[in-house]
Order: sequence, then structure tokens, then C-alpha cells
Amino acid sequence: MNDNAPRNAPVAPRRGTRRGLALDELTLAEGFWRDRQRTNADATFAHCLAWMERLGWIANFDRVAESDTAGPRPGWQFSDSEVYKLIEALAWESGRSGDARAEAILESLVDRIAAAQDEDGYLNTCYGHEGQAPRYSDLSSGHELYCTGHLLQAAVARVRTAGEDELVAIARRAADHVCREFGPDANTGICGHPEIEVGLAELGRALDEPRYLEQARLFIERRGRGTLAPVALLDASYFQDDKPVREADVWRGHAVRALYLAAGAVDVAVDTDDAELFDAVARQWDRSVERRTYLTGGMGSRHQDEGFGEDWELPPDRAYCETCAGIASVMVSWRLHLATGDVRYADLIERTLYNVIAASPAEDGRSFFYANPLHQRTAAGDVRPDAVNPRAEGGARAPWFDVSCCPTNLARTLATWQAYTATVDGDEVSLLQYAPGLLRVALESGELALDIATAYPHEGTIRITVREAPEGPVRLRLRIPSWATGATLHDGHEAHPASPGWATTQLRRGDTLTLELPTTPRLTWPDERIDAVRGCVAVEKGPLVLCAESIDLPEGWPIESLRLDTGTPPQPNGDGATVQVSKAATPLPHQGAVPYRATPDPSEAPDTAELQLIPYHRWAQRGSSTMRIFLPVQAARNA
Amino acid sequence: MNDNAPRNAPVAPRRGTRRGLALDELTLAEGFWRDRQRTNADATFAHCLAWMERLGWIANFDRVAESDTAGPRPGWQFSDSEVYKLIEALAWESGRSGDARAEAILESLVDRIAAAQDEDGYLNTCYGHEGQAPRYSDLSSGHELYCTGHLLQAAVARVRTAGEDELVAIARRAADHVCREFGPDANTGICGHPEIEVGLAELGRALDEPRYLEQARLFIERRGRGTLAPVALLDASYFQDDKPVREADVWRGHAVRALYLAAGAVDVAVDTDDAELFDAVARQWDRSVERRTYLTGGMGSRHQDEGFGEDWELPPDRAYCETCAGIASVMVSWRLHLATGDVRYADLIERTLYNVIAASPAEDGRSFFYANPLHQRTAAGDVRPDAVNPRAEGGARAPWFDVSCCPTNLARTLATWQAYTATVDGDEVSLLQYAPGLLRVALESGELALDIATAYPHEGTIRITVREAPEGPVRLRLRIPSWATGATLHDGHEAHPASPGWATTQLRRGDTLTLELPTTPRLTWPDERIDAVRGCVAVEKGPLVLCAESIDLPEGWPIESLRLDTGTPPQPNGDGATVQVSKAATPLPHQGAVPYRATPDPSEAPDTAELQLIPYHRWAQRGSSTMRIFLPVQAARNA
Repeated sequence: MNDNAPRNAPVAPRRGTRRGLALDELTLAEGFWRDRQRTNADATFAHCLAWMERLGWIANFDRVAESDTAGPRPGWQFSDSEVYKLIEALAWESGRSGDARAEAILESLVDRIAAAQDEDGYLNTCYGHEGQAPRYSDLSSGHELYCTGHLLQAAVARVRTAGEDELVAIARRAADHVCREFGPDANTGICGHPEIEVGLAELGRALDEPRYLEQARLFIERRGRGTLAPVALLDASYFQDDKPVREADVWRGHAVRALYLAAGAVDVAVDTDDAELFDAVARQWDRSVERRTYLTGGMGSRHQDEGFGEDWELPPDRAYCETCAGIASVMVSWRLHLATGDVRYADLIERTLYNVIAASPAEDGRSFFYANPLHQRTAAGDVRPDAVNPRAEGGARAPWFDVSCCPTNLARTLATWQAYTATVDGDEVSLLQYAPGLLRVALESGELALDIATAYPHEGTIRITVREAPEGPVRLRLRIPSWATGATLHDGHEAHPASPGWATTQLRRGDTLTLELPTTPRLTWPDERIDAVRGCVAVEKGPLVLCAESIDLPEGWPIESLRLDTGTPPQPNGDGATVQVSKAATPLPHQGAVPYRATPDPSEAPDTAELQLIPYHRWAQRGSSTMRIFLPVQAARNA
Repeated sequence: MNDNAPRNAPVAPRRGTRRGLALDELTLAEGFWRDRQRTNADATFAHCLAWMERLGWIANFDRVAESDTAGPRPGWQFSDSEVYKLIEALAWESGRSGDARAEAILESLVDRIAAAQDEDGYLNTCYGHEGQAPRYSDLSSGHELYCTGHLLQAAVARVRTAGEDELVAIARRAADHVCREFGPDANTGICGHPEIEVGLAELGRALDEPRYLEQARLFIERRGRGTLAPVALLDASYFQDDKPVREADVWRGHAVRALYLAAGAVDVAVDTDDAELFDAVARQWDRSVERRTYLTGGMGSRHQDEGFGEDWELPPDRAYCETCAGIASVMVSWRLHLATGDVRYADLIERTLYNVIAASPAEDGRSFFYANPLHQRTAAGDVRPDAVNPRAEGGARAPWFDVSCCPTNLARTLATWQAYTATVDGDEVSLLQYAPGLLRVALESGELALDIATAYPHEGTIRITVREAPEGPVRLRLRIPSWATGATLHDGHEAHPASPGWATTQLRRGDTLTLELPTTPRLTWPDERIDAVRGCVAVEKGPLVLCAESIDLPEGWPIESLRLDTGTPPQPNGDGATVQVSKAATPLPHQGAVPYRATPDPSEAPDTAELQLIPYHRWAQRGSSTMRIFLPVQAARNA
């Protein structure tokens, strides 16, 4: 048992000495993430609630409570999970900030849910009641255990911030029901959409109930044996039922499913000390991150199955990069980091936080990207603020979706942002993500308080002042991101070069440290095996991926005409950069009617211009636009 | 009325003087297409029949006849259409070659279908009977009119080759029923999947029944007004209900739907002399072929909706290029060519015939490609010869599919191949496609017989001997493909250069002409706006697109390591070419775990080799493999 496990955090492994931050250990000051967390609490919670009331997704619980389920039921079969994810967000927010609005909504929702729970603990508004299909009659697509998993995660948030209450009791009954129905001698099925595993494992930790971990382990072990009935035109890899987790080498199929499953597998592997299972997920991370991950950290190359593609299949235009897959990727990397301390996991978390998760919500927290492509060829049509949108193709933030998993997933993630910013191990603190605020943690030898001042990610200076520290030696490790070549750490006396990885220092009260991460805009080149961006380059600035957006282009330059002059270094400009571009020459006439010919395109590019690139997370905020991250380089012609 | 309209051909417009070839006007000799047509008759027909019997798709008709429809019905809601397409193929084959086996199967199928027709002419095995949803209760997805359209096309084949018989009578009743149900004062709906339009128009021509054309016109005009209920997550463009045909500028949404609709629209436009409608389709062809068409002629860039992508969105790996879309593209281009004589339509037909349609069937005619990608990253698993496959991802020919539209579509297309090879206009014959055989056509001034000797497409020499000719002047036009720069026509006396377009000559009995089309392998460059193949080039040889297949690579060279040395011209080698390639240097280590870094990949490429490229239509015949058409060029590095 890890006695260091934080009271107030989403993930608390039972083994290992490293722990994540409790949410109340970092008080954010004004800045990039404080803004987003405030908007989340002030706008997004009420927005999600209003849509789910309007669409009847919450009333579905009332109808079960009132035995009024014979008629048609609004929402997809998994709509209950959205209510649970909102409850989870509310619980973390209320627990972290004491937000009374969040607490009131939470309590009212829990009452309605409680009334819908069957006597034996089963809780689902789509199955098992009058006029509905029987319980667990469609494990492939029914999502019942998936919904339960989200209920359990919500209860974890509650028990860790408020103790055992009605929600926790509901979750206990639901988890006990699952253990009875799917235990070793019962139904040997699994759910088409993983999630129950991670929910059971963490609730087991939170309630110190090993049966839940064991049930999670059973679900993990049963998967990959082809027992799920096929869904339409997709094969078993769609829901990772093609190969057992411990045998797979790479993530495949539906990205969110693959990643939720991986998160649950890490939890089980860590708590059961199963090195083979742990190594399998770590191996899958290595290969998937190397070959199936976008520059933004986004995962999912295909719209068809919302899934991973083959190795090196990373089209920027058809990138799916679902917001939820970004969130799930953070879930997995965070668990792997807690277990290993490997800095690469924290690097990927940062990339994903700034370029997937921060990109999704609009500034007002009331519309969201579902897909996060890296290249928008045609400006999306306007989204009607009053309408449910189909699962977005990308290019427009929408208030709500037919399948609306992303808004509530963002809500719970933003409410817990602090959790991922640092780890504590004995008398060592490791800072992983940089944001201004006051960090106050209890170390083995006493309390440490650090004042962090920074305008990160827009500036690379991070000033840390030690407000309080124990007498004995305390170690501080600062993550130097993999992109931060040339960083320096000034310890109050002199500046030391800091290479990517960790910069380590001893702390004493009154010390002031200054970390300088370079935020000069830089060129980033893709591996040549990524066919879809051959001959192209991207520009990054600090942790931010930049992009060209049509609104910033010279009159008459389509987005596909842009060619980047790599001979002129990008210059910093606000939160973005200015680059030198040229306009591609008019293509030669085709030979025949198809766009192919016997001669390569001309290489001269007469018009040149300066172009402002902006952070990718801000694109499409100024209206409907075309956009691209990877720009063809001026020199790389077809000859 | 076009009095020249051929008795025995799939398309016979009522206006215009140019007509296509009747199937019996060209007797093929041994060669590329004779092989395929024979395999079609000898193997594919029986193969399709056996699968449809096995799966109960034909027995569905028996069950309707026996009022035994209360139980579950096998097959998708559109499975009737497969039976009709097979009947169409059988009718053309029987009519063209007198194949007694085809005739016997046809008659037996027609008897079973006849018994399932309702008294009022409605004929569908999925709707309108006991235990089934009511007729036309799901126009978006029900496919009832789609199925009827295929029934009408089958009847066209029958009436033009055998006269009015039971099948034609069934189709008449079905068409009359549609005119009553969906006429001007009745149901104003349309079918989610276009096809009824082209079926009604041609049956109207074949039976001289203007009501059918008028009903086709009504369906065309009603479309594009957003009346179809949305299907899952797709918008109205999926079934071209977003914009009226006469207003649209480009094809979009589901490719087969878009193209069947366009074919019907051309038929209606030609017969009603509607220049605006005709010009709309011609305009859509121009832009779609310029910006949304693959080098193979394939159409459909997206798996998600089996649809067209945006302009220039042409990923080679995720190319869908459904076989049926290739067939539908030929249907549209053929109609446009008949109306205009524009050689570009025949060029695209050739490209599609050799690189989509010829690619689909295996040599034995018993398995098929459904999708036709231009780049296969991972070898497909083996296909079990005894199993129904999900709609294929590409890479393996499968015997049958869950949605199995392609095999029967190929069957009817191969049975009518002769129809697309030439046109006749007064005393002028235009040869569009080259194959060995005897062409015998009745011209205004008498009979013309041409002996055609060629090993095309493998050789570029086409020798034409005039066996019979009328006394008066007869003009022969030979299509010079757009790729055939440097062609010559030897008229028996001297060689004349022949530029892409038409080579025209006067014919007299005894003349011998020799057309030389260059078949030296050549490099073909993509328009630079096609991001997905930037820095790559393809190799073509005559009408054949070539590809590199893993089985031909040096040991230890993955398909993605290939770099083409464009300085060494490709050399002819059998039906393919030999090229000089190098192996890409080992990529630099990534910066962090993601496949992006601060420096471009190295440009040196140490190992070189000769590589045999094969015609794309032959790939995956030697077992499961990886493959690519567009090869990165050695010089175009990331710097």
C-alpha cells in the first residue's frame, strides 16, 4: 500500500512511492490554465447540464425511477455516461474549490440517479426495464459496463473529496452488482467499450476493496479473445478484442477504447505487480507514440472507426484526433509516469494538454471541437448554437453533439488539471507542468511551499521561490521538455545548462530559482516515413504547435498555395510567430483531365510575404477558416 | 429519336447522332479483355449465384411468394439488387454470346422473382409484407427504389437482346407502380441511393415509354432539397440531398450514389434537351476529375462514407476507390461521351478500366477487391475462401462481402465491355478502346469490317485491316490517349505523328493502318496541390499504372524505404518496368517519443537496387503483400 497516496487526486496506485499531486496542493494563479479552469466551472458545467436536461438524458433516470420506460427513450445507449462524467467534474470542482454551484448541481443529479438504481445495484436507463432490451443482451454495443465505469469514476471523485455519501453508496452497489454478474463463476463477457476496468480499479483503491481490482483484472484478461459480436463492418480490433492486452504490441482500433483499456491495464498491472502486463502497455505506448501519434499529441488517424491507423498513417487533413482520445492518452501516460517516473510520459502529456485538450473548448466554454485535424481544407459551415451537431468533421466548435462525449470529458479533465503538474516521492518534488501559483506539499520531512511565477506557455521563464521548506535536504526536479534544447537553470548564483530530461537541485527556504526554457519559434520536421507530410515542416514555439490560418493570409492566397521559406528563421510574434512564405506558382496544365502529368510542377514561386502563425489551440476562434500546421517547404519541389 | 440507337447496348440516348457499339458488333479475339470476359461467364456468374443461394438472398423471393416473411430475413435491405445485377449480366452475356448456361440461370431466376411480385407491381423482399416494415417507410435507407432501378436495368438488357419476355413484363409492372406511387401528384419522396433514375430512363428508351423518363426527371428534380431523413452521423451530402443536381459544382458524398445520380441526370438531360442540367453534370465531371480522382481513375477518398473527399484530398493509403464507383464512373463518362464526343471522357474510361475494374477480380473470377487503395502499408491477412468478408479495407480479394455490390457489378460490366470500345456517327467510326478482334458495323452507306490485331495494353502497336467497306468515303477516328505523346499512325504509305486526341483517316477496303502508341514506361507527377503524395512520382506504361509490391523488393527493404532514382529512366520489363531505387537512410532518432524532430532526415541513401514494377491490376495475386504506386523521389528530401 502506498501510504503517500493523495486524498484528493484521480489516480492513487497501491504500489510505488511516487504520488501525483492532490488537487488542493497547487493553487493556480491567473494564467493559461486558471482561465480554462474558471471557464469550465463558470460556463461548461451549466452548459452540459442544460443540454442534457433539454435532450432528456437526465430525465431518462427519472423515467426508470417512475417505471415509465415503455415509450421511446431519447439519446444513445451510452448517454448515462455523460451524466456521470459531469458529476465527476462537479465532484472534483466542488472538492477542489468549494464551488457551491457545483455542489448543488451534483447533489440534485445524484438524487435523480439514486432513484433509478434497481434493487440489486444495476443502474442503466437503456436496458432491463419495461420496453427495453434485457440487461447485458448486447455486450458489443450496449455500453452498460462502460456507463457503470464512469459512475465509478464519479464516485472516486466524491469519496476522495467529500467522503462516503449517497453517490459512493450507489457506486458500491453498482460495482458489487458487476462483481456478482461478471465474476469468475458468472457471465464471462466483456463490454465493447472499455472503461469499467479503470473505474473498478480506482474505486477499489479509493474504498480499499480488492474485489473491484480483481474484477477489473478479469475483464482485462478476458479481452482479446474474439468473444464480442462484430459490429457492422468493423473487425475485432475495433474494440481491442483481437489480441489480449499482454500480447499486443501497438494500439489499434477505436482510439478512446484502446486508451481507456490501457489505463485500466496499467492500474491492474501496478496493483498486482504484474510486470508482463505493465511492460505490454509500456511497449504499446512506445510504438504507438512513435508511429501513430500526431505532432499535437493527437491520436486517431481514421474517421471510419474513430481509430488508430497503421504505423506512419498520419494524414493531417483526415486526422480524427478525438478530444476524448487526447484525454484518454493523458490518463494512460499519467499512470505510466507514476509507475516509472519516465519523463517522456510527462512530455507527451504536455504536448496533448496544449494542442488537443486546450484546442477543443471555445473561449466561452460553450462549444467544443470533437475532431482535431491538423489541416482544414474547406472552411466549416457555421454551427447553429441551438442545434445538436453530428459528430463533427472538424473545423467548427459545436455546442453539443449527437454523440457528445467530449464536453463532459473536458469538464472532468480541466477540473483536475493540477493533479498532473507534479509528483512527490519522499523528500523529492518533480515539477512536470508549468503554471503560475502556489504549490504546497507535505514531504516526509515537512512542508514545502513554492511560489511559481511564469507566463508559460507564452514565455519560457519560470521563477520559483521557496516560501517554506523543511530543515533537511529537499530535492526539486524540473522537467526540461524534449523540445527545450538550450534551457538554463539559474540557481540564484549562476546559470547552468539544463538538457532535456530533468534539472535537479537542492532547495532551501528563501531560494529563488529561474528556469529559462527557450521559446524561440522553431522548425519541426516529420519522420520521413510519415508519407502524408513529406516535404513539409511545422513551426512550434515552446509547447505550442503553431498553424497558418486563412484569415491571416494575404488576399488571394489559398491555404494550399503556402510554401515556407526555411532559410529565414521564424520570428517570435505575440503567442505565435512570423514566418516568410511564398505562394506556389500556378500549377501546369494537367495531361488529360486528371491531376497528373509528365512533368513536375514548376519550382519558382514568385510572390513572397510575411505570415503570422498562431497557436493551434486558438484556430477557428475568429470564424470559419481553413488551416494547416504542416507547411510545404519552398525548396522541396517535385524534382 | 436516334434511329441509330443500337439494339444490343446498355445506353441508347433518344437524341443525338452518335451511337455506341452494339455488343455483337465487336467479336473479341484472345487478349486482355477476352480473358476477363470468358472468366466472367465461366466462373463469376456461377460464383455469385452460389453465394446468393447460400446466403438466402434468392430464397428471399421465394419466401415472399409463399407469404412466409414473418421470420427474420437474411441479407441487407438491398440484397435484391444483387440478384438483379446478376440477371442483367446473364442477359447481356446470353444476348452477346448465346451462352446457354447463362440463359438457363437467368430463366430460373426470373421465375422466382416473378412469383414474388405483388399484384400492383411492387417487388421487394424486405418491405411491405407480413412481419416487415411498410413499403417506402424508410426512403433514406430502405433502398426499395434502388433495387427497382437495378431490376429495370436488367430488363433493359433483356429487351435489347431477347425482346419482351417475362422479365420485361415484371419490370414494366414495377416501373408503372413507381410512376403511380411517386408521380407528380403522389409521394414526392426520393430514394436515399440513386439508381432508379438511370433505370427508369433507359427502360423508357428501350420500351419507348416516355412516362418512365418523366418519372426519372421528377426524381432528379426533387433531389437536393434536404427531404431525406439523416442517416446516423452523416449529413445530406452523403446522398446528394444537399443541393439540386443542376446547381452543384462537384461530386460529393457517397461516390457510387453521386455517380449513379449523375448518370441518370445525363440521360434525362439528353432526352429532354435540358442543356442546363447537362452542363451541370459536365461541370461536376470537370472539377471532380481534376481534383478528386486518383491516378488509377479511382474515385472515393474516404472510407467513412465511401465518399469523395475535399478537393485535392487524395490519400493513397486510405483511398477507398470502390470498385463500384469505378464502374459508375464509366457509366457517367460513357453517357457524356455519347452526347459530346469529347475524347477526355474516353480517356478516363480507359484509365478506370485498366486500373480499377481490371484490378478487382482475381484471375479465377472468384474473389474481388472492394476497395482499391494505391498504397498498402500492412499486408492484409489471408481471406478465408469460405467466409463472408466485411467490406474490405483493401489488400485482399475476397469471395463475397457482407455488402456485396462489387462482384455482380463487375459481372454486368465485363459482359458489356464491347459497348464502350467505339462509337458510330453516320459514316464515321471512332475507336476508343483497343483490343484484338473483328469489328463489324453497319454504317449509313454500308457495312464496315475491321480486323484489329494488337497485344494492347502490353504493346502499343495496333494494326487495323479493312476487310469490308462501303464504296463511299468512310472516316475512321482513332483515339490517341492523353498520355500517348509521340504516337504515330502509319497509313500503309507513311507514318504521321498523332497527337493526343484523335487521329483521323479515310478508309478503303484493303487498307492496313498501324497505330503506334508509346509504351515506354514513363514518370507521372502529381499536381502539387495533392498534399498526400508530395515529393512522390508514379510510373505508368501505356494505360497501365504500375506499382511496387513487397514481394519484388530486396530482402530487408520495407515498402516505405523505397526511393525512386528519377535520373535513371524506367526500362520496359515484361508488362511492367524496371526502375532504379535506393533505400532510405535510417531515420534520425526522434526528439522525444513522437516522430518529429528539430532536424530534417538525412538525404544520403546508401543502398541501391533495381526493382521490378508490375501493373497495379495484378497486385496481391502472388499472396498478401504491401504495395505502393507513388514512390518518394530520391532527391526530394526534407530540406
